[in-house]
Amino acid sequence: MKFYTKYLWVHTNKIRDFINITGDVETALKESGISDGMILVSAMHITAGVYVNDAESGLIEDIEKWLEKIAPYNINYKHHQTGETNGDAHLKSLVTGHEIIVPVTNSKLDFGTWQQIYYAEFDGQRDKRILIKVMGE
Amino acid sequence: MKFYTKYLWVHTNKIRDFINITGDVETALKESGISDGMILVSAMHITAGVYVNDAESGLIEDIEKWLEKIAPYNINYKHHQTGETNGDAHLKSLVTGHEIIVPVTNSKLDFGTWQQIYYAEFDGQRDKRILIKVMGE
Amino acid sequence: MKFYTKYLWVHTNKIRDFINITGDVETALKESGISDGMILVSAMHITAGVYVNDAESGLIEDIEKWLEKIAPYNINYKHHQTGETNGDAHLKSLVTGHEIIVPVTNSKLDFGTWQQIYYAEFDGQRDKRILIKVMGE
Repeated sequence: MKFYTKYLWVHTNKIRDFINITGDVETALKESGISDGMILVSAMHITAGVYVNDAESGLIEDIEKWLEKIAPYNINYKHHQTGETNGDAHLKSLVTGHEIIVPVTNSKLDFGTWQQIYYAEFDGQRDKRILIKVMGE
Repeated sequence: MKFYTKYLWVHTNKIRDFINITGDVETALKESGISDGMILVSAMHITAGVYVNDAESGLIEDIEKWLEKIAPYNINYKHHQTGETNGDAHLKSLVTGHEIIVPVTNSKLDFGTWQQIYYAEFDGQRDKRILIKVMGE
Repeated sequence: MKFYTKYLWVHTNKIRDFINITGDVETALKESGISDGMILVSAMHITAGVYVNDAESGLIEDIEKWLEKIAPYNINYKHHQTGETNGDAHLKSLVTGHEIIVPVTNSKLDFGTWQQIYYAEFDGQRDKRILIKVMGE
């Protein structure tokens, strides 16, 4: 059993952004030399998400708008009494989840045609980290 | 460490459907010969979900109605400019998540009494695939 | 490859409650002797969640209020025809998810500064169980 751990740094210009990290995960898999197993891809922050969905730009706009509708920016969150203004970002992270497990078979991401890995930033404009841990043989 | 990978095909008659795949996952576990470890159950599509919850038929109706309320069918999604009509299915998939990890102990799914594994189809009437990967010893 | 499985019992006084179980997961990791790998933390019930987010008390109130808004207590769920009154708890569990995978590196939870593990009880005042399975080397 081998374990290969890697950290990706991201720093978005916008407060909210959606970054396709599929290529980064594929690179980590190649570096690991693992052919069968899985990859944990996990945001190391509580105001960001990691999810699998489509790379289509219109859909990404739909996702952003929809997340804003169900977990809106709001000045009245109790969390803001600490001086923060990112209460919505914490809630958005709960909707998407902060981590995924990607299957690896025959040295490849064992994905369907349209599956792509996204890092969803909900409180950006600062350094953030994503953990990629490849586990298998 | 052993890895056993299997693919389930599903093709629902309805656009939206909820299929209990607990028995299929138990069959894969038996075939794997693994007694301790975990199972990744992952939809290979971006318009479907996999979740753990109750097999009670009334609750399944509640879940379908509730998902429609928070991620409604809507003709105005930007994604539809590509010719698709399934924007809601992508959003519903983000709510449920597309994969789960099932614990295995003593050659059994290490579940509580009422936990059942569901494949949730949000854009059916076509061939879809679910990956089951058993990992352990 | 080692596997170490442990069960936590919880019994909340309130119907809904949020319990920080990060210390319990760290204890299980120490007991396992594993230095690299991952930990599955999974509610064994379908009316509870497990998620990673902030330990800030105001935010926890925000999360509770927000979950009630998107998956409200409602006397009209079909599920209640079985005699249950906890339909909302099943839906809240789908929002947060019922399990997480925690990375382990150098014998520690490989977390960012603010990441904490929470058990979210949505139908408490009874005995509930959480599975912790440490897997690695």
